[in-house]
Amino acid sequence: MERKTIKKFEALVGEDGVLSTPEDLAVYSYDGTFADRRPDLVLLPSSTEQVSRILELAFAEKMPVTARGMGSGLAAASVPSEGGIVLSSARMNRIIELDEENYMVLVEAGIVTADLQAAVEKRGLFYPPDPSSNRQSTIGGNIACNAGGPRCLKYGVTGDYVMGLTVVLPDGKILKTGGKTIKDVVGYDLTSLFTGSEGTLGIITEALLKLVAKPASVKTVRADFPRLDDASGTVTAILKRGIVPATIELMDETAIACIEESAHLGLPLDIEALLIIESDGFDERAVAREIETITKICRDHGAREVTLAGSEQERSRLWSARRAVSPSLARKAPNKLGEDITVPRSAIPETIRRIKQISSEHGLPIVVFGHAGDGNLHPNILFDLRNPDHRAKVDIIAGQIFKAALAVGGTLSGEHGVGTLKRSYVTEALGSISIDVQKRIKAALDPANIMNPGKVLPD
Amino acid sequence: MERKTIKKFEALVGEDGVLSTPEDLAVYSYDGTFADRRPDLVLLPSSTEQVSRILELAFAEKMPVTARGMGSGLAAASVPSEGGIVLSSARMNRIIELDEENYMVLVEAGIVTADLQAAVEKRGLFYPPDPSSNRQSTIGGNIACNAGGPRCLKYGVTGDYVMGLTVVLPDGKILKTGGKTIKDVVGYDLTSLFTGSEGTLGIITEALLKLVAKPASVKTVRADFPRLDDASGTVTAILKRGIVPATIELMDETAIACIEESAHLGLPLDIEALLIIESDGFDERAVAREIETITKICRDHGAREVTLAGSEQERSRLWSARRAVSPSLARKAPNKLGEDITVPRSAIPETIRRIKQISSEHGLPIVVFGHAGDGNLHPNILFDLRNPDHRAKVDIIAGQIFKAALAVGGTLSGEHGVGTLKRSYVTEALGSISIDVQKRIKAALDPANIMNPGKVLPD
Repeated sequence: MERKTIKKFEALVGEDGVLSTPEDLAVYSYDGTFADRRPDLVLLPSSTEQVSRILELAFAEKMPVTARGMGSGLAAASVPSEGGIVLSSARMNRIIELDEENYMVLVEAGIVTADLQAAVEKRGLFYPPDPSSNRQSTIGGNIACNAGGPRCLKYGVTGDYVMGLTVVLPDGKILKTGGKTIKDVVGYDLTSLFTGSEGTLGIITEALLKLVAKPASVKTVRADFPRLDDASGTVTAILKRGIVPATIELMDETAIACIEESAHLGLPLDIEALLIIESDGFDERAVAREIETITKICRDHGAREVTLAGSEQERSRLWSARRAVSPSLARKAPNKLGEDITVPRSAIPETIRRIKQISSEHGLPIVVFGHAGDGNLHPNILFDLRNPDHRAKVDIIAGQIFKAALAVGGTLSGEHGVGTLKRSYVTEALGSISIDVQKRIKAALDPANIMNPGKVLPD
Repeated sequence: MERKTIKKFEALVGEDGVLSTPEDLAVYSYDGTFADRRPDLVLLPSSTEQVSRILELAFAEKMPVTARGMGSGLAAASVPSEGGIVLSSARMNRIIELDEENYMVLVEAGIVTADLQAAVEKRGLFYPPDPSSNRQSTIGGNIACNAGGPRCLKYGVTGDYVMGLTVVLPDGKILKTGGKTIKDVVGYDLTSLFTGSEGTLGIITEALLKLVAKPASVKTVRADFPRLDDASGTVTAILKRGIVPATIELMDETAIACIEESAHLGLPLDIEALLIIESDGFDERAVAREIETITKICRDHGAREVTLAGSEQERSRLWSARRAVSPSLARKAPNKLGEDITVPRSAIPETIRRIKQISSEHGLPIVVFGHAGDGNLHPNILFDLRNPDHRAKVDIIAGQIFKAALAVGGTLSGEHGVGTLKRSYVTEALGSISIDVQKRIKAALDPANIMNPGKVLPD
């Protein structure tokens, strides 16, 4: 980038807010995927006003701008695939207002989700969305890809908590959406439009989030199912009883084998699936009764054993199986590609069967776990990037997994987003009419196509 | 309209699907407001395909098209304010699929909400959104204005149940959004964009709706508050305890007086407000305990008396006060204008005080009731349309109520929508940058401006 242009940005955000050495740029060139592209410049603004001034300039010079939280994304959405500016939210991590009366918090986009959660929990409040990355990822990033997490079964996804946004538009204008009103039907729902748009329509700088009261009681069980179909049937049976547990996490036999191989937790190796189910609430007796009912439903639907965590320590031990999944995959193979399909709940067994077939066809292990209550599965393909044969296969396998999801009425992503990784499958998933509508919206809001170009929508 | 054009439409929907006599047109010229404009033609398509063919033709001829459910709207959104075609969904009222495994139902837009609710409740399922109009209004209309209702405190509004839509675009193309996946982050959230867009972006012909299990137990209390502030403080206190009742309905002293005057239910006339609070769930003991806690919170926060409904009959009697509001207004004055502001919950007392001041300033009664848990208030201005003095004042009063809502951080509508009635206040509510973004979206999706022109956005 020309020195003259860099100087202009330095005038806006200060010299220490502009990074341009190759070493610095390298740090901002990747996310949680294998994608890698260096930006021309990294900017660290510290206010919405500065973001606005940056975009005015970028708009005038037609420079691509890619927003970045902490780079933990799993679809390459924050990798600047056409170069240009990376706009980091690292310096915008304040809680602006905690409104305890209305149960809302106004934050800057760069706050790390777990930091926000800890701050509101001190006041007896609760921000439920819990992406596994919550200790690294930011609220801005969570909103940009509408992140989920285990608790989303009961509590809903990130978008369900976004009451309003401050968004800097491509030309630098500052848009405010929503507000502290729970219900709002005035005009089009711009809050939802920007949520999940992966930085392609504007830069989210602030978010007003809804909070709930922190549940006082929580109970957890693990249920072992010799047959996968029974585990899936149990999920439906629980929900049909009107019980909505906080989480219903599923691990299939490949995940269980993987965990046992590395962590030796004593999980049974002769079952096809296990569920970890957690209930929470404010009435301890009601939560206890709910978990009893859940236990009974599990047993009635083919669970061989149901283990109730009697203490916080035992609860933590039950969850250790779920937490062990990712580390155990890393031990099993040098590389993994974690997918994020969602399917109608009833299609979980069929989907897992199809994935097993794909796995055996290509001779690469695919471990399946995920949020069964939501039908959101994470098939993880294990491979070795140094092996050219593996490399070629992984793309084919990912494509086949997407097709399997679409075939059963599902879609490509439940919480990771599209980024560049799933871009070539989007038209098949949504249809050309939907893509046309989305392109028209993109063109209307970002006519110069400077906002995270090359993402989400196909060319 | 030219006979030749009418013939073309008759070819599409059959002779009995085209209405053009003055008497027929008159029937389709109004909704629940005072607005009145005759369409040039009324069409009664019976399939998405027919709607698509109609729009192709309307698009070619640049004819305005206004979608209409049952005409119960309260913002004149379905009144064809620029003439043209009214597209009635009356013949599209089928349940296409009830998916009991995935708890979803696919319906045509013209189904009456209460009919859908009755059908799914027979199977132990539950569609929670409960606009007061649910015996007349259609799902399509509910979605078009993102309708709410008392139960939305716990269960969320119509939009929270819309999983996917079939929308006919202005040029006749058929767009499908969403699907049976609970989580979906592939592309922009078009489902939310069309929800609440009041027919200005396309015609919703089918909707895939999420269902929940029908709650087995329900308990209701009425709490009488000598002081309005205490009623409002009680709402916050309940929610802070982690309790989310199904409904918290508020009636202020003007509403109570009005009800008593016409219905003689024995309500106390020396209190400033009453709350009707309802808890529901699947665990009868937990619901009973929850209502006990609510009762205690009411008492601790200044309720003079809390009446628990011990039987279904008593419950119905408690609700009769709420149901009596609207009829009692009709007895009190020949005309009423029901507004629909929402404010942050904490601002309810301040808002009601401001409304009282407006009322006394103009010498017209304004009765306030609404969904206190959501901060959604319905100030009803009582007047006599034959009185020219009243007529002049009503518009001024409505404007002052909107300004009061905006001043405390609220907005113009929580569940009725904008239509033509609130159109002139939208810029003040949302800001010119938001309006500009919305206009760009409207222009991108409806370049010929044939979809319900003259609604929602200012010229």
